[in-house]
Amino acid sequence: MHRKLRAPALAKPFHVTLVDPEIPQNTGSIARLCAATASPLHLVGRLGFKIDAQSVKRAGVDYWHLVDLRLAPDFSAFALEHERRSGPGTVRLFSANARKSYLEAPFAPGDALVFGCESAGLPREVLERYPDEVYGIPTMGAVRSINLANAASIVMFEALRKCGALDATFAEG
Amino acid sequence: MHRKLRAPALAKPFHVTLVDPEIPQNTGSIARLCAATASPLHLVGRLGFKIDAQSVKRAGVDYWHLVDLRLAPDFSAFALEHERRSGPGTVRLFSANARKSYLEAPFAPGDALVFGCESAGLPREVLERYPDEVYGIPTMGAVRSINLANAASIVMFEALRKCGALDATFAEG
Repeated sequence: MHRKLRAPALAKPFHVTLVDPEIPQNTGSIARLCAATASPLHLVGRLGFKIDAQSVKRAGVDYWHLVDLRLAPDFSAFALEHERRSGPGTVRLFSANARKSYLEAPFAPGDALVFGCESAGLPREVLERYPDEVYGIPTMGAVRSINLANAASIVMFEALRKCGALDATFAEG
Repeated sequence: MHRKLRAPALAKPFHVTLVDPEIPQNTGSIARLCAATASPLHLVGRLGFKIDAQSVKRAGVDYWHLVDLRLAPDFSAFALEHERRSGPGTVRLFSANARKSYLEAPFAPGDALVFGCESAGLPREVLERYPDEVYGIPTMGAVRSINLANAASIVMFEALRKCGALDATFAEG
């Protein structure tokens, strides 16, 4: 049994967006998530690591060339381009400090799913730009937040589920 | 705004189970997921790394003491203990090679969520033990599987969502 479960790609994909990412392993595993879900990956602001082909290869990321990677110098530049592409009201922010659950987010294809850096989360100016679009992942244990790449994966697959992208699966040999 | 979104813990938690895990960073990030969701973590079979306090600390995992960690020498020993605790029909297996989607899994509190090792997936004898309980995460991109810790996170939060564990959230300062 070496068949993979597949689903059709969205016509308008979700746009995974990392602001000031610090830890290359997290960005690497989110890059794999993006390549697996046909989602562009936007890296915005300062990067805590190099992304030239050699550095990426050294970090053990062997699918980097399969990622639709887009860079923006700062969040304003990203937001301008994103809203031109996907329209207003299509930015969802994710933070460890949030009042609303990610299950309440009105996900639609084309949305930007925006995550902050590992140590400090999203910058205040980003949170203040979309104050009603800040969502968190609830926890119930002694640890009150989860790894960035795990959080991005949970959000991405909930978004895909909610908009029906996982309804029609098929096996591929 | 430094309040975390929380949810009540399940009376019967899910049991995250890793068979022959190879990569310490994945187990570390799954341990954090378990500590955040009040879920026991079962490590079964051969481990590709040391889990004494010093080795774990060196790997940068600083919440290891908050994890309800349980070890089993092999899958049969785990399954015997698990079915004694949670009853029959409570084992869900996750594999990159599956015919059914994780969205079809009849998740219930107390279930074991079982994942194989990074390179080879679940051993054949485990898959053959529960042939109707093998689920996959559909992909649609050029890469056809995702990182083990990301997969475990997606499955865990879908299981929590489906059984209503994320319905009543509250803020905690």
